[in-house]
Amino acid sequence: MSKNDDKPGQGPDNSRPKARLPKGLLDSSAQEIRATEAMLATIKSVFELYGFEPLATPAIEYTDALGKFLPDEDRPNAGVFSFQDNDEQWLSLRYDLTAPLARNVAENYQTLPKPFRRYQTGTVWRNEKPGPGRFRQFMQFDADTVGAPSVAADAEMCMLAADTMEALGVPRGDYVVKVNSRKVLDGVMEALGLLGDTNITKRLVAFRAIDKLDRLGMYGVRELLGPGRKDDSGDFTEGAHLTEKQISAIVAVLEAKDFGSLRPILDQVTVNTGGVPDEHGGLAHLPYEDALNEMTELEGLIRTAGYGPDRIWLDPSIVRGLEYYTGPVFETELTPAIKDSRGQTIRLGSVISGGRYDGLVARFTGERVPATGISVGVSRLLFGLQLLGKYKGDDVQGPVVVLVFDRDRLRDYQRMVQTLREAGLRAELYLGSSGMKAQMKYADKRGSPCAIIQGGDEKERAEVQIKDLALGATLSKIEDREEYLKKQAEAQFPWPEAELVEGVQQVLKRYKA
Amino acid sequence: MSKNDDKPGQGPDNSRPKARLPKGLLDSSAQEIRATEAMLATIKSVFELYGFEPLATPAIEYTDALGKFLPDEDRPNAGVFSFQDNDEQWLSLRYDLTAPLARNVAENYQTLPKPFRRYQTGTVWRNEKPGPGRFRQFMQFDADTVGAPSVAADAEMCMLAADTMEALGVPRGDYVVKVNSRKVLDGVMEALGLLGDTNITKRLVAFRAIDKLDRLGMYGVRELLGPGRKDDSGDFTEGAHLTEKQISAIVAVLEAKDFGSLRPILDQVTVNTGGVPDEHGGLAHLPYEDALNEMTELEGLIRTAGYGPDRIWLDPSIVRGLEYYTGPVFETELTPAIKDSRGQTIRLGSVISGGRYDGLVARFTGERVPATGISVGVSRLLFGLQLLGKYKGDDVQGPVVVLVFDRDRLRDYQRMVQTLREAGLRAELYLGSSGMKAQMKYADKRGSPCAIIQGGDEKERAEVQIKDLALGATLSKIEDREEYLKKQAEAQFPWPEAELVEGVQQVLKRYKA
Repeated sequence: MSKNDDKPGQGPDNSRPKARLPKGLLDSSAQEIRATEAMLATIKSVFELYGFEPLATPAIEYTDALGKFLPDEDRPNAGVFSFQDNDEQWLSLRYDLTAPLARNVAENYQTLPKPFRRYQTGTVWRNEKPGPGRFRQFMQFDADTVGAPSVAADAEMCMLAADTMEALGVPRGDYVVKVNSRKVLDGVMEALGLLGDTNITKRLVAFRAIDKLDRLGMYGVRELLGPGRKDDSGDFTEGAHLTEKQISAIVAVLEAKDFGSLRPILDQVTVNTGGVPDEHGGLAHLPYEDALNEMTELEGLIRTAGYGPDRIWLDPSIVRGLEYYTGPVFETELTPAIKDSRGQTIRLGSVISGGRYDGLVARFTGERVPATGISVGVSRLLFGLQLLGKYKGDDVQGPVVVLVFDRDRLRDYQRMVQTLREAGLRAELYLGSSGMKAQMKYADKRGSPCAIIQGGDEKERAEVQIKDLALGATLSKIEDREEYLKKQAEAQFPWPEAELVEGVQQVLKRYKA
Repeated sequence: MSKNDDKPGQGPDNSRPKARLPKGLLDSSAQEIRATEAMLATIKSVFELYGFEPLATPAIEYTDALGKFLPDEDRPNAGVFSFQDNDEQWLSLRYDLTAPLARNVAENYQTLPKPFRRYQTGTVWRNEKPGPGRFRQFMQFDADTVGAPSVAADAEMCMLAADTMEALGVPRGDYVVKVNSRKVLDGVMEALGLLGDTNITKRLVAFRAIDKLDRLGMYGVRELLGPGRKDDSGDFTEGAHLTEKQISAIVAVLEAKDFGSLRPILDQVTVNTGGVPDEHGGLAHLPYEDALNEMTELEGLIRTAGYGPDRIWLDPSIVRGLEYYTGPVFETELTPAIKDSRGQTIRLGSVISGGRYDGLVARFTGERVPATGISVGVSRLLFGLQLLGKYKGDDVQGPVVVLVFDRDRLRDYQRMVQTLREAGLRAELYLGSSGMKAQMKYADKRGSPCAIIQGGDEKERAEVQIKDLALGATLSKIEDREEYLKKQAEAQFPWPEAELVEGVQQVLKRYKA
């Protein structure tokens, strides 16, 4: 920490600090929290069913242990929040849950069950430029299998994503898990002479360009594969600077409708580029052959297990933007047209994504440990589910509020609250210092089903008044006098104090789903 | 971020990073996570019953918004992890959940229901010197009522702490909630002439000394109230440098057995110090009078609600180390002698603590907003409960593991897994590349109830072998031959593949609690 005058924690001139959050950070309301928790509980139940075990790692790691795998490399610190420890070593807030998993596995490899199957829910941080729908703190929910070379582990990830969507209440047909192998495009890159360390930037920029196909369309991807692209705001993104021949070959692969039509296209690419010559001058083992065989095996496993192409679809255009993928990659989309509150169609993007990353643990140990996994984008998935009418977080009723009519009788009111709580009913004493009108407003704002009032008269008759707040709010709309009187009598009624719990339960029953 | 050579993310000489965590940070095992989650769910249910609503705030806040309220001020950054944003503003990781709450309330005061009653579970970070049982990341679970001047809000916090302990399975008598008012000692300080800004450090050091009474005993506290104290390791802690007369007065108050015996002691202190003269030269309104009245009112409320002195105890020696408390303060202790694995008695300290802090929101707005709350020390409470035999986190059974006998028949095995999962049974396919012996070891390590095996012979008979792993492990200890054969037949048996689910359920039933 540098020792300049601008010390942490001191505003200018000892003035009062302003109550505000840094950009890209948000508070969450009770409703959002309840919706998120309900959704996470469902996801967790599916991950547990699949045999994954929970793991938690701390938010802070050594910077070098996390590595740099974020796509957004133009920003300082490569998009990561970093700071120095007291011993001058650099620490960072984790930017995903995969890098810490690799660290955990490398550290504990001897004692872990192999394969190691873990899930983890956690907050991650990105030191990115905040924008609409782009936050600097968000939550991920990951499942990974480490130490599993078999494509069966990748197949399982696809099935896990599909089962998770259905457990969340998304009907079959309203979601699709797309899978491809990074090796297909790796093979194309090889045929196009783009392998090797000197081409690493070109490959990465190309992968990121292809990852944006859904958002930019093929023309935009072409621009990014070439010299670059200017977006609507006028910002220019540098391209991969591939040749027109290289671009055409990649586009041909991306335009393959399915894996069946992929093989002839790939063969054509190889022939066009002259292929990769073997020692006898003929065409060598085609570089994407492995990938195609792997995908065939994966398809066999998922179809035999009963997952049809309506649920898991092999899509040659999926690539993912992260650098570390080495094999199959996955994306999950909600397929119904999703519209926001203004009726605009929203491009939500992938809600469960991942892939195989066989090199991450080797960063530490030098030994290749095959691994594959998926990550749920918690906020994005919740947003999508809510637009489909699910996980609204509005299913918890507010507390019964015992009002303070007579400040000298706090003890009596507190005892009533106690009685309700002992019966398992959510209840509280009004703890502010305002009068009855404000107290009623408070109970309304809290979403209370009913308020309990006891003035001197009620006390003398050993009674309370129970006021049904939802019903009370509808009274002004009733025009028929008889109906009004009937509803009014239901909306507020005297009740024996000794039977307080039963009286409240009577009101609660009116609103049970 | 300074631009020196020691850039984040780069180890020396591009060597491989070491897989390790910074000191004071830990990974959590599945068992720890399950135990914590079960405990948090119970706490949440009680907090909800009391009418509190969840709130979440981000981990990162502006440093000036968090303020400096940590007791450990000798460390750089006053114990907080801080870093500069891209616009040079200082950000910090939150060190508790109270400071962010104050920021949230100040920011949203107009729209919040008043009082505002919220609970929050969250990770907090302290940039402290790590040590045994002292971590740099831990979890808190807070409940606060903001905008409630009434002592009824403080009384509720005591009852909430007591009810939480009982909901967690701690029997009455095995815990006690201790409550005092910071104002009692504030009054004593006033009588001793220690008010005012010039004495702020003396008062703070004195409060922190008193907060250590439980750990250091009265002699240690006396030293810290005086010139200072050298601990067992030889480290010297600077004291408050009070006079012997001042120290004696404070000690007399701390030695009061209960609030009944406190008043004469306080009167004596006031007389001894000459008291606070009023304008006529007599003794003014005694400064602790308010505190005593408040505590009497609090006692009335909790006793009427049915909480006896065995559950909530008024204890004049409780003070809490945090600077910002302005009224009642609370601590909760487990009372049975707690022993660690080596039989040593452990001083666990307070597991649920808090107090009234009427000044925190005013830091932002200038307007005093009364507030009170408690915080559960999640790890410490879990540690205590586990030593009492609760919340072990060992109640989730491992998955059924379908072994891979014949690698060419992955699809068949995957379908068996699918069948089990569809029946709601936790199951997985062995996804590693090892042979049968290692696969059995894996299933053991995962705590699987049983493994499913199908070789060629079984396949021909449309059967599987079901192996009960727990029972299998006990076989070698059986000496009686007949008993051995009987158990052996139970431990591994052939079963029709078509009835796989029923066969597995038969084994699971053996281990149902």
